[in-house]
Amino acid sequence: MRLADYVAEYLVDKGVTDIFMLTGYGSMYLNDAIEVSGIRHFAARNEAAAPMMAEAYARVTQKIGVCCVTAGPGSTNAVPGLAEAYVDSAPILVISGQVEKRHTTYQANLKGLRTFGTAEINIIPIVEPLTKYAAFVDDPNKIRYHLDKAFYFALEGRPGPVWLDIPLDVQQAEINAGRLLEFLNVYRPTLPDVQEISKLFKELVQAKTPLIIAGQGIRQSGGIEAFRRLILKYDIPVLFSRLGQDILPHSYTNVFGQTGTKGSRYCKQIMQNADFVLALGCRLAVPLIGQNGEAFADNAKIAMVDIEAAELKKPGLRIDHPILGDVKLFMQHLNHLGSLHKLPDWSDWLDYCHKARANHPIITEEREVNPIDLYYFMNRLDEMSDKNHIFITDAGSNYYAGGQVWRFERLQREVCSGCNAAMGTTIPLAIGAAIASPESQILAVTGDGSLELNVQELKTISHYNLNIKLFVINNGGYASMRKWQDDFFDGRRIDTEEKTGIGTLDLQAVAKAFNLKTMLIDDYRSIDSQLQEIMSNDQPLFVEVMTDNSQRVIEAFEEVKEKVNE
Amino acid sequence: MRLADYVAEYLVDKGVTDIFMLTGYGSMYLNDAIEVSGIRHFAARNEAAAPMMAEAYARVTQKIGVCCVTAGPGSTNAVPGLAEAYVDSAPILVISGQVEKRHTTYQANLKGLRTFGTAEINIIPIVEPLTKYAAFVDDPNKIRYHLDKAFYFALEGRPGPVWLDIPLDVQQAEINAGRLLEFLNVYRPTLPDVQEISKLFKELVQAKTPLIIAGQGIRQSGGIEAFRRLILKYDIPVLFSRLGQDILPHSYTNVFGQTGTKGSRYCKQIMQNADFVLALGCRLAVPLIGQNGEAFADNAKIAMVDIEAAELKKPGLRIDHPILGDVKLFMQHLNHLGSLHKLPDWSDWLDYCHKARANHPIITEEREVNPIDLYYFMNRLDEMSDKNHIFITDAGSNYYAGGQVWRFERLQREVCSGCNAAMGTTIPLAIGAAIASPESQILAVTGDGSLELNVQELKTISHYNLNIKLFVINNGGYASMRKWQDDFFDGRRIDTEEKTGIGTLDLQAVAKAFNLKTMLIDDYRSIDSQLQEIMSNDQPLFVEVMTDNSQRVIEAFEEVKEKVNE
Repeated sequence: MRLADYVAEYLVDKGVTDIFMLTGYGSMYLNDAIEVSGIRHFAARNEAAAPMMAEAYARVTQKIGVCCVTAGPGSTNAVPGLAEAYVDSAPILVISGQVEKRHTTYQANLKGLRTFGTAEINIIPIVEPLTKYAAFVDDPNKIRYHLDKAFYFALEGRPGPVWLDIPLDVQQAEINAGRLLEFLNVYRPTLPDVQEISKLFKELVQAKTPLIIAGQGIRQSGGIEAFRRLILKYDIPVLFSRLGQDILPHSYTNVFGQTGTKGSRYCKQIMQNADFVLALGCRLAVPLIGQNGEAFADNAKIAMVDIEAAELKKPGLRIDHPILGDVKLFMQHLNHLGSLHKLPDWSDWLDYCHKARANHPIITEEREVNPIDLYYFMNRLDEMSDKNHIFITDAGSNYYAGGQVWRFERLQREVCSGCNAAMGTTIPLAIGAAIASPESQILAVTGDGSLELNVQELKTISHYNLNIKLFVINNGGYASMRKWQDDFFDGRRIDTEEKTGIGTLDLQAVAKAFNLKTMLIDDYRSIDSQLQEIMSNDQPLFVEVMTDNSQRVIEAFEEVKEKVNE
Repeated sequence: MRLADYVAEYLVDKGVTDIFMLTGYGSMYLNDAIEVSGIRHFAARNEAAAPMMAEAYARVTQKIGVCCVTAGPGSTNAVPGLAEAYVDSAPILVISGQVEKRHTTYQANLKGLRTFGTAEINIIPIVEPLTKYAAFVDDPNKIRYHLDKAFYFALEGRPGPVWLDIPLDVQQAEINAGRLLEFLNVYRPTLPDVQEISKLFKELVQAKTPLIIAGQGIRQSGGIEAFRRLILKYDIPVLFSRLGQDILPHSYTNVFGQTGTKGSRYCKQIMQNADFVLALGCRLAVPLIGQNGEAFADNAKIAMVDIEAAELKKPGLRIDHPILGDVKLFMQHLNHLGSLHKLPDWSDWLDYCHKARANHPIITEEREVNPIDLYYFMNRLDEMSDKNHIFITDAGSNYYAGGQVWRFERLQREVCSGCNAAMGTTIPLAIGAAIASPESQILAVTGDGSLELNVQELKTISHYNLNIKLFVINNGGYASMRKWQDDFFDGRRIDTEEKTGIGTLDLQAVAKAFNLKTMLIDDYRSIDSQLQEIMSNDQPLFVEVMTDNSQRVIEAFEEVKEKVNE
């Protein structure tokens, strides 16, 4: 059979039902095989967006997300999305077409040869730093080996992207599917050292004010149920990292929402009073602990459970119990230890945390004003939304505000640009989520500055008639940038407002040009009724939300006001 | 002084007057220094487009083009444009902001650490394969060294991109500008081996039907005048590569336009009757010689002069005289040898070439039809244009048709996506050209499929009120893709027309949404009067050109109809 058809059938066997792509000459046999295979394919308008779509798809379905792009610019265009999937630990597979082997710089291997065949670029060295596995498929008889390996590495341990580059002559090579080299390896999550867990347990039960910080590793390990039991058994407070905040509803027993420099207003009190922190599947990133650790627990012992050894060794991060291994197995073992012993009563500490939350509400009557306060709007969006709804955010104030007020009471999900808070990712992420979960309503929020970066994908939304409500926060463009220009440079402005026209687009005209219906929200008093109408159907809609241009984002630890490195 | 200010002053000293950028937190001191320096800065709407703008700027001005982007996604977004500049040998400098050193994965150097500081990505390993020099600026006292080196490598030999990644704490470090380490190196073009040139000369003068193929290396070496003298002295026919075709007007003595698989209709006769080919500053790319060399001179001796050793050694390329060195110095030496000897009379051969051209006109009365024939339109664009006008094309039929009918009689320039013929590059290239040459009218052509990839930059055109006439060829989307789907897969369609809605946008509504005025051209009889009106002012304009959906591109060597590798 034709190798390209083998690839498509392999994907079908692995349960792949959807592919994000942009066709091209260099991937034409792959494109054709996908068409023949019956896998649904969705065209991105720029390859940059395709891996972002695949990332959201992977994060919603907990399966691998697949893209197919063409050679040369098709491949280099896909790098921005690849980078997003890499840092946010999303398992995606990118298959790129390539020119015939004999015309590849890969095979020619001559220093200084920049391109060889028509629109050819040696993509593997470029994407290697952004993937867990990247290979040029040289020998048709190794296609199964490379696919096996790609699927293995995408999903084992800490998930992440993989990339296969397949030349045109390899795509159309005839192979005997029964006689292909395999890569036999089954991922078995590793239980951390039980001695270490016992030591940690002993310290934990002696702590007066222990605290759990929970990250997306819990979901990725399939450990949400184990985590729920852990909370019920140990009865200690929990704060979430940004990517972990949709693991459980924020009204759930002992859950106190998001922490970090841009966390909830009361997280500072909780964090700074903790004497023992247990980080579970959370990498304790700089935005969480603060530039100089100022948003972290100053006096606490720190235990951190992570599947990635490097995360435990980051310079500047003081970990008393670095525990390498699978967080689900860790939690199961800790639950087991917990059932063998009588656990302390931490109810005073929990009361303290409840009071801290009660004393620092974000949503108050003061936010019931016009122009619309972003926190107020985001809260209403959360309150009016239902199960199966998926929130999306990308960069700037919408990213931060969503992280601070959403409560996920009805088990809504969130997919955001986690590590990068990258401008322009909301639209592709929303598309991937909508395709992953057609029964969901996608509540996607972006800014008027961010909108521009992948504005072409508005057409993808309208063409596939996806159930995406895109809320574009009109705050005059680049509100976050204005903020640091005010903070650091006495308000000296560059690339904002009048100088570049950022924020001067007629957003609804843009949406209409891409065949989307539009709505305007510009009065806080009509938000509820408008949201009710918006969520009453499964059609795409572009909603411009006029908000306060001088909106300030809550700085839980006031970190940004310091100068860098001072 | 602050290092960021030193960088801006260094750029000013080097004659940099314009920078393409998108601001961000990670590059904030650089952004501020640029603002203070008085260098004009132009905001791209997505960093992907900024290096493309810089590339066009470099190719128009023959100076270095400069971009500044922020850390993380700002840097990875810029990769697609960087790749374009690399393969098309454009000298550009990208300066990226980076998080503080202590929060970089570069410095942490831990395998498996994907990101560390806020929105941090270790960009240098990713861009290394696409640059001539890429460095993380670790030591503030080496900033001059890195800048010297970046400028040196961007411009020496075969030009190309360079990249400096500067952490926030390095950006704001105080340095003593008088006490910085330097990189002292002045590029001196190398004269190729004169013995080799003498040998080549002897063979050349014995040839009956010698032919010159001229590429952009001639312009890049500053050798256009030497080239003009060469033609006049030796009096032999000249064909251009795609990137070389604007070196001289196509009616100039002995100039016969473009060759290659997508060359002019008569280039096949000329090429296949040549017994000696002298390639000057042209890499003899696959699209020029054909997949299997079928578009190249079958029986000729081949001499090739190139500054890049690897280009002389490409597998499958039979070069009898590989000559490494500067093409301008080579031509000056060959002109010198020519003046010492009586040269043969090749007028019969020239007559043959003239007849071949006369017998294979592209622009005939048959193209005076509706729906508009793309060749007819492109020819009128050429005929109606004037000196100082710059043509831009990117991908698909507009790219090929422009290459086949434009004659550059009034020394117009062309900037196209040369090696990659990459979709979506026309708009950023047009912007870079317009900023490089404000006195020029930019006649930019793109397709309705390509338009989408960088559609956000329409706003850049309208905001800066650039003198760009953007002609969008409406052929129902992805005409080139439909063609290979017809050729290879019995017309089985993927990602075209009804399946994805490509080509179904109301293009003029899109343009208006981005504040551009629009015009429609849909009748061949009104093209001249409309073009006259269009070119009568220096305002931006979006022109939709309705052309024949079944437009076929001339295949000079009918290469595409063969299956790959058969």
